[in-house]
Amino acid sequence: MNVELISVGTELLLGDIVNTNVAYLSRELATIGVNVYRHTTVGDNKERLLQALEHAFQMNDTVIITGGLGPTDDDVTKECAAEYFNRPCYLHDATWHNIIQHVTQFRRNNPLTENNKKTAMIPEGATLFANKNGTAPGIMLQEQERRIIMLPGPPREMIPMFQEDVKPYLQSLTNARFVSRYIRFYGIGESLLETKLKHLLETQTNPTIALYAKTGEVLLRVTATSEDEVTGLALVEATLSEIAELVGEYIYLVGDDSIANSQTEMHTVVARQLMTQGLSIAVAESITGGYISSLLIENSGISNSFVEGVVCYANESKINTLGVNPATLSQYGAVSEQTAREMVEGVANRFKTDTAIATTGIAGPNSDDTSKPVGLVYVSTYYKGKITVKECFIKGNRQLIRERAAIEALNELRKQLILER
Amino acid sequence: MNVELISVGTELLLGDIVNTNVAYLSRELATIGVNVYRHTTVGDNKERLLQALEHAFQMNDTVIITGGLGPTDDDVTKECAAEYFNRPCYLHDATWHNIIQHVTQFRRNNPLTENNKKTAMIPEGATLFANKNGTAPGIMLQEQERRIIMLPGPPREMIPMFQEDVKPYLQSLTNARFVSRYIRFYGIGESLLETKLKHLLETQTNPTIALYAKTGEVLLRVTATSEDEVTGLALVEATLSEIAELVGEYIYLVGDDSIANSQTEMHTVVARQLMTQGLSIAVAESITGGYISSLLIENSGISNSFVEGVVCYANESKINTLGVNPATLSQYGAVSEQTAREMVEGVANRFKTDTAIATTGIAGPNSDDTSKPVGLVYVSTYYKGKITVKECFIKGNRQLIRERAAIEALNELRKQLILER
Repeated sequence: MNVELISVGTELLLGDIVNTNVAYLSRELATIGVNVYRHTTVGDNKERLLQALEHAFQMNDTVIITGGLGPTDDDVTKECAAEYFNRPCYLHDATWHNIIQHVTQFRRNNPLTENNKKTAMIPEGATLFANKNGTAPGIMLQEQERRIIMLPGPPREMIPMFQEDVKPYLQSLTNARFVSRYIRFYGIGESLLETKLKHLLETQTNPTIALYAKTGEVLLRVTATSEDEVTGLALVEATLSEIAELVGEYIYLVGDDSIANSQTEMHTVVARQLMTQGLSIAVAESITGGYISSLLIENSGISNSFVEGVVCYANESKINTLGVNPATLSQYGAVSEQTAREMVEGVANRFKTDTAIATTGIAGPNSDDTSKPVGLVYVSTYYKGKITVKECFIKGNRQLIRERAAIEALNELRKQLILER
Repeated sequence: MNVELISVGTELLLGDIVNTNVAYLSRELATIGVNVYRHTTVGDNKERLLQALEHAFQMNDTVIITGGLGPTDDDVTKECAAEYFNRPCYLHDATWHNIIQHVTQFRRNNPLTENNKKTAMIPEGATLFANKNGTAPGIMLQEQERRIIMLPGPPREMIPMFQEDVKPYLQSLTNARFVSRYIRFYGIGESLLETKLKHLLETQTNPTIALYAKTGEVLLRVTATSEDEVTGLALVEATLSEIAELVGEYIYLVGDDSIANSQTEMHTVVARQLMTQGLSIAVAESITGGYISSLLIENSGISNSFVEGVVCYANESKINTLGVNPATLSQYGAVSEQTAREMVEGVANRFKTDTAIATTGIAGPNSDDTSKPVGLVYVSTYYKGKITVKECFIKGNRQLIRERAAIEALNELRKQLILER
């Protein structure tokens, strides 16, 4: 099956929104062995969409269109597809009933209008996909070997519909079963990882391996094709072992697609370790300014471990709240190994926790009054009396330096938690 | 001028990266009156790119291609464009010299290879755009009324090149001058704002007005076309006044494109107010868990105002560090108006600051042991002895609730700072 993705919406051509749908669908389709040959975006314009359909079917047998299924006159997707396959539309009772229910339930300030009826007009012979989060159902039209699959534009409507109905349907067209697992790496760049896995990447055909660069991290996907899931999983596991042997020291998490979409999972790994080991934590943040605490608290259930966080951006805080020695600050400066050490020790002692993290550094755009460079960061960890301090040089703007510093600190604690487990 | 944007890269078709370039370029082109008619994405494949060029020029006179300018064999953009306009390539000495310099300076572990020479091969008659952040220059080829503009794929190379060279060039093709200003709104949804500005949005032709939805905020752009900037600015100012009269209470920031790209500017507005008014601040965060402190510290220079932040997720922290009365917690619960009030008063008193913020709420996925709903949040502010508490009901997942709670709290302090100024 060869697929073209067509996105419909003048707002996309004006740059009002970033098209995340095509990246999502492309990645999902790749995991079930479907080739995507082109992405096209056109405005809310019937003639251009018809032209795009024509163009798409010259090369592909399946077209997935997102957007343009709404109730306004601008929404032309369904009308174009119906015209393209020469199918008249009729009022689909069940859909109309659903719309009345949905609008009554969720949109008290936005009553039902005559326009809504347009949404319930369905081309003859269509297959429908239920929309749990909106009014417009997904629609598939088939004609011999060609099919048009139309999905709503808003990701919160499109994604569940794709997961629950469209993906299983596409998978049912083939006997092959696809199993995917993801690995998250920290502390190694994409190009070095590529070099280290070069042989595997070049020779491996089943499972396939794909690398995705994220900010400061790399995500790797392993996808096996087989006739059943057990065989597929075994193929994946074998490749995961090979990868772990080559670059295991940089792996911090292995899992299914639930770990693939977020920017980082480092805080989740640390939070889980703390919770399962029953360890308490306190955090003292200068350069990261509360970001580490905020990441940890992203994990529900952390209240059993998280005792308190201190944002001690000012020297006075470091002295008064953490008990850092004023002489240390004046001799070595706030951004120093010595200060980082006293900070983490201070916060752990104050709140009597099993573990602690502290950060201090220069986020820029200007240095402090010393000759220390922007991007110099010290992250320190505490584990039952044992202290580590790591010096980092982080490139980037103020925001990036602070984000990377937070992940560096969490990673250091993660290593400590594994070591001492 | 009608433009098609072509993105080149198999990684886009695999969903490895989200295509932010087209949204960026589309929005930038809209501000200088250039129509974008289609976005197309193709893989690193010569035949398909040539086909895309052919297809693009059927409807447009200008094609902007991003990606595929690198040194590897996969990179085919320049070769396709040269072939399309029948231009032989030659080794461009100045470009080759730049590449040697760049590689020597920035890539000590990644020495110069024969491949790099490919980057310096330039089609005859090309106009070049300097690349300050990479090795591949931007390239423009023209043939009568048709032009192909090729830009590197990485945004950190493409964006400065577009801003510094390509945008001024495109502007120079017309006598018209474009002036844009942006307004950021908080506390009003996109559809209600649209309704309130309906008349303006429908009748306004110069300046044009565009709305962009962001998480919890709306961004509005006003763009005037005229023969000179002074006239354009006057047109924009008149429209800004009209908008302010209709929905001024929801406006929190007006500015040029520097305020357009970030997710929120609320923390910047608050930080600036604190700094210019010479006010100190302390923050006590339960539900937001350090996120407000982290946002404030995003602003350089804040160290003069930011005294200390406390992440008091646990009840013990609220009692020991902030001095919240245990009776208040047991009578009203941690998520209550009364607790929020004592938190903000406690943190302001402890650190003797002019202002303070506190938050407490239920982020979910489960409620606390009470019958209070997930999404219930209290944000409190302190301004020289005066305390406000706001009750909010925020919809969304755990992360969204926490982010929105932070912005709600900052917005409350912002209003207080303006009121008391």
